[in-house]
Amino acid sequence: MQFTSEQRLDDGVLEREFTLGEIPGILWTPGSASTPTPLILMGHPGGLHMMYPRLVARARHAAAEGFAAATIEGPGSGERPRSATAEQARADLRRAVEAGEPVTDEIVDRLVLPLVDKAVPEWRAALDALLALPEIGGPVGYSGGVISVGTRLAVVEPRISAAVLFAGSFVPRTMFDEARQVTIPLHVLLQWDDEGNGRQMALDLFDAFGSKEKTLHANMGGHTGVPQYAGEEANRFFARHLK
Amino acid sequence: MQFTSEQRLDDGVLEREFTLGEIPGILWTPGSASTPTPLILMGHPGGLHMMYPRLVARARHAAAEGFAAATIEGPGSGERPRSATAEQARADLRRAVEAGEPVTDEIVDRLVLPLVDKAVPEWRAALDALLALPEIGGPVGYSGGVISVGTRLAVVEPRISAAVLFAGSFVPRTMFDEARQVTIPLHVLLQWDDEGNGRQMALDLFDAFGSKEKTLHANMGGHTGVPQYAGEEANRFFARHLK
Repeated sequence: MQFTSEQRLDDGVLEREFTLGEIPGILWTPGSASTPTPLILMGHPGGLHMMYPRLVARARHAAAEGFAAATIEGPGSGERPRSATAEQARADLRRAVEAGEPVTDEIVDRLVLPLVDKAVPEWRAALDALLALPEIGGPVGYSGGVISVGTRLAVVEPRISAAVLFAGSFVPRTMFDEARQVTIPLHVLLQWDDEGNGRQMALDLFDAFGSKEKTLHANMGGHTGVPQYAGEEANRFFARHLK
Repeated sequence: MQFTSEQRLDDGVLEREFTLGEIPGILWTPGSASTPTPLILMGHPGGLHMMYPRLVARARHAAAEGFAAATIEGPGSGERPRSATAEQARADLRRAVEAGEPVTDEIVDRLVLPLVDKAVPEWRAALDALLALPEIGGPVGYSGGVISVGTRLAVVEPRISAAVLFAGSFVPRTMFDEARQVTIPLHVLLQWDDEGNGRQMALDLFDAFGSKEKTLHANMGGHTGVPQYAGEEANRFFARHLK
């Protein structure tokens, strides 16, 4: 892990860009916090530059609770090399949605499963590097989109002890079996009228999670319309579980 | 409205029992608050004495936010005269549930519709009396069970400006039309494995509400297993809308 830039934000949060091999990432640490601090891994749909405004807002809120926050670029997104098969699957998905056709399991599998297979080991490698920093301790939470990535991480990565999952992307059928194996506390956000998601699929996935403590917060509006208070409630979930 | 008893609780909250005609009720006001205070009407399934521990806990939390809270006995419950038809409908419902049979629309209508017709004017009369007290101002919220009562109140009572509704009772089909007419902000609580409720019916009702701002919070566990943090989130909803 190589830090490539560093700046202090106006609220005292230290923002550092890094690379982990070929993968760019960003780490935010609170200006004043007793170290080592808990860490939140922030997932997103891909495209660090485009997502930056929302990511830095989430990181500032996390820092206000005393948490460090980190994110890495997704496979095939941002400045990382494209995958031809993923681009094709994404185009097929877009075409189906725009034509008002059902999104087939075949398209979803072709788009999401390779992404999960590639992203999850990258998040784990990032976690190794982040936890090696003296200022980062634990416990660790995962927060974010691509709910299949969060689900797989919650199953395979024992260092993640709570997760906020955003039900805003299509989920391969096989992920339901993985969901049943999740046991950590979950806080699931659903936008009731999300155009990039099936509501019933999201409810079924929530039902499938094996966790004894799981909460679903559904709010009105589309994919990007998560109200501010919903973000605050997600923060309080982490405050309950990561402190 | 006649006050019949008065006591100061250990946290300074003033608890006063009252009668409104033949209807018993309880009013809790914060020990220290700038008057006039906002008011939360606290619905419940009926049986003030049995419900008292949960009601006083909810009232204390409301008082800590600076809200007064009040409740009245439900029609045919507690010390109020029984209704033979309601008792019969309740017995039929219990029999169907215990036999694992579907609860028919006919039973639900027979149980719930007369209750709504009777309870809603009583809540409105209580609201008249409560708002006439110098220490109670507004705005007014409704919080509680018997979701059909809360739904009808939200439609017909313009002085109620936000509601926390507990999806823990069967809902007559005709209430869905009323739900579409609700426009105030709603915060709906659903216990995912509630034995006294149909989950799909609760989700359909949530979908039907006409409110632009509505949030569903689903938690694990049965009817009485609402976690403490879910109550705190409901309080924050009122803090956003009644202050």
